[in-house]
Amino acid sequence: MTEHRGFILWFTGMSGAGKSTLASALEDEFKRKGYRVELLDGDEVRTHLSKGLSFSKEDRDTNVRRIGWVARTLAKHGVIAISAAISPYREVRDEIRALTEKEGSAAFVEVYAEAPIEALVARDVKGLYKKALAGEIAHFTGVSDPYEPPLHPDVVAHTSTESVETSVKRILHYLIEKRLITE
Amino acid sequence: MTEHRGFILWFTGMSGAGKSTLASALEDEFKRKGYRVELLDGDEVRTHLSKGLSFSKEDRDTNVRRIGWVARTLAKHGVIAISAAISPYREVRDEIRALTEKEGSAAFVEVYAEAPIEALVARDVKGLYKKALAGEIAHFTGVSDPYEPPLHPDVVAHTSTESVETSVKRILHYLIEKRLITE
Repeated sequence: MTEHRGFILWFTGMSGAGKSTLASALEDEFKRKGYRVELLDGDEVRTHLSKGLSFSKEDRDTNVRRIGWVARTLAKHGVIAISAAISPYREVRDEIRALTEKEGSAAFVEVYAEAPIEALVARDVKGLYKKALAGEIAHFTGVSDPYEPPLHPDVVAHTSTESVETSVKRILHYLIEKRLITE
Repeated sequence: MTEHRGFILWFTGMSGAGKSTLASALEDEFKRKGYRVELLDGDEVRTHLSKGLSFSKEDRDTNVRRIGWVARTLAKHGVIAISAAISPYREVRDEIRALTEKEGSAAFVEVYAEAPIEALVARDVKGLYKKALAGEIAHFTGVSDPYEPPLHPDVVAHTSTESVETSVKRILHYLIEKRLITE
């Protein structure tokens, strides 16, 4: 294994904004470099850690806090932990950043996968926005449930106007600049 | 960090049988050797991953499966993951062993902290057995809830008749023999 520091690469953004696509592309890139990396996908984590939780604010917060705990535990041991869950509430994301920095064992890098709701509705890869706008999905982030964008994200990926490659390059550049990975 | 393989060191045994004591002693020993180690304590995991779960069989199984998932994720990345939860049901422990071995990324070592119930009741460090025998604690393992000892544990620690040092030595000897750690 090549040497690198453990850190948390935390994606946030609405459904369909490209979090998983970016997270997977970075996971591949890190693996290519021989880094230890774990992608904590929102759906996978729900299955293993949060079965039974609803999409109410309280349960979403609990789910996101659990991802945060697992990510911190991995990063502490030198693993790059990537989270790709929606994580709609600012306060909980900031809480996880604060806990990570307080423990002092890893960096927390927040990446905002940004796309205007119009673009997401127009693309609607999984057909979820259509259903949500028709009132068929309760607690759908950005439609029937709030999404609070980060006020000071470390990196912004404008996923409706730039290519995956461009976003990935910007994220890698940031990580190199912060000396979390080598070129 | 010294090189070692990632593996799961899974303690099982009744309340007061010495799981946490042995787990802590081994954690210290691994840290002294410069190994990456994470102790997943039953109570800590309940706080972070399983708040709200009861002590019914179903909820206990869910809690233990979550510890198993976190332990596998850590061990996959070369960390020694130690679990010190009671984990009373054989089927779930065997399921975690099977999943670990199927994934092929880490070894699963089951240590049975064995002590006769009479010895645990006589010692009763936390006064829990007294309460449980008085019927004041529902679902108390070994009294009002079952404990299923492992049929083929990798190591047995006879904690009522041997010293912590003796048990720790036996566990270390097993790990060296299996080439999971170096002498």
